[in-house]
Amino acid sequence: MPKTTKKMESGRPSDGRSVNDRKPKEKRWQEILKAAAEVFYEKGYDAATLQEIADRVGILKGSIYYYIKTKSDLLDHLLTEVHNEGVAMIRKRSELTGTVFDKLDAMFRSHIEYMCRNQAKTTVYLHELKALDPKRRESLFRGHEFRDEFLALIKKGQAEGLILERLDPKLTAQTMMGWTNSLYQWYRPQPRKPVDQIADHFITIMLRGIATEKGLALLPTDR
Amino acid sequence: MPKTTKKMESGRPSDGRSVNDRKPKEKRWQEILKAAAEVFYEKGYDAATLQEIADRVGILKGSIYYYIKTKSDLLDHLLTEVHNEGVAMIRKRSELTGTVFDKLDAMFRSHIEYMCRNQAKTTVYLHELKALDPKRRESLFRGHEFRDEFLALIKKGQAEGLILERLDPKLTAQTMMGWTNSLYQWYRPQPRKPVDQIADHFITIMLRGIATEKGLALLPTDR
Repeated sequence: MPKTTKKMESGRPSDGRSVNDRKPKEKRWQEILKAAAEVFYEKGYDAATLQEIADRVGILKGSIYYYIKTKSDLLDHLLTEVHNEGVAMIRKRSELTGTVFDKLDAMFRSHIEYMCRNQAKTTVYLHELKALDPKRRESLFRGHEFRDEFLALIKKGQAEGLILERLDPKLTAQTMMGWTNSLYQWYRPQPRKPVDQIADHFITIMLRGIATEKGLALLPTDR
Repeated sequence: MPKTTKKMESGRPSDGRSVNDRKPKEKRWQEILKAAAEVFYEKGYDAATLQEIADRVGILKGSIYYYIKTKSDLLDHLLTEVHNEGVAMIRKRSELTGTVFDKLDAMFRSHIEYMCRNQAKTTVYLHELKALDPKRRESLFRGHEFRDEFLALIKKGQAEGLILERLDPKLTAQTMMGWTNSLYQWYRPQPRKPVDQIADHFITIMLRGIATEKGLALLPTDR
């Protein structure tokens, strides 16, 4: 299977079979991706085997080869999926109406919720990018789509006098994305620490932290 | 070698030999720890072997057994060292004179500099704690020493009206530690992004982000 086809980036195997052959296999493919995320998460990519992933799904190892050729293909599909889901989610939020702070709030909130709901595959994404084929990794990040959505809003906020002029926009976008990503390191579902409360803390500190005096006046004072 | 002896926590092997026997081996032991950090960093703990670590140092694999019994002992030494160095560093900064912001500034700055200067072993610490013997891990974190240094300052700042009352102090300490730790994910030494500039951005956003109006007046306005 070629590793850089369009079909692959949609998260479905491009094995050359007809759509009818593929359709009923879609559910199984999703099960395999989910099991791969779990096994990579628990053991790390290097130590994980296709055998364990097949066992987790309850299929023969040979059946996995209907979908992919190598363990590396599986990682590629998984990371591409997380990347594309993340970019689509952030972009949707950045198109909302409102101030730059409203948009950044919505973007960070959806990002945080996604990470907390998809902890295994988010962790694999953040830990195992280095294991991805370098050309694929480069092609995934060439667009800087993720960072650029934040970057554009920070620059807009600076132009409007809402965000501190003295902050470097690229470094600030990078910093705040890194901070949001860091949640996967310590977040564990806990009734006493709902995701909403964590998101409120993150967003309060980040937005107040970059705001000018004029910007602070636009931010909520009750959370 | 017992895994929980005092000597072990000092970062030296407790092999029962006399101090004179051990001394000339200290340098070699430091080389082994450094090589272990590098190999764990590059391959992940699970995939790493004592053979590779020995090769990196340029000694026979058997020589490593003078210092430790298992790969797990090596991880234990390494993580204990990072933990103890981190706690000592933060505690020293928290004892400085100045406002809570001065102390938090110094703590974050030294933490960030440590991480950037010790990227391999910091990454191993953050990625591989889960691979540590659960009892050892528990004993390492039982004191919550690291978090509690930040927590005490945040509570003090709230009592003084400098830090927002509505922020949960524990969650805020956890959040800001997590953010500082996140640097290991993307920091790469670059002449165009000196560590100082990164630290300035981190500290500006974090401290302004938690400050009340009264607190903001104490913060620098030029970086």
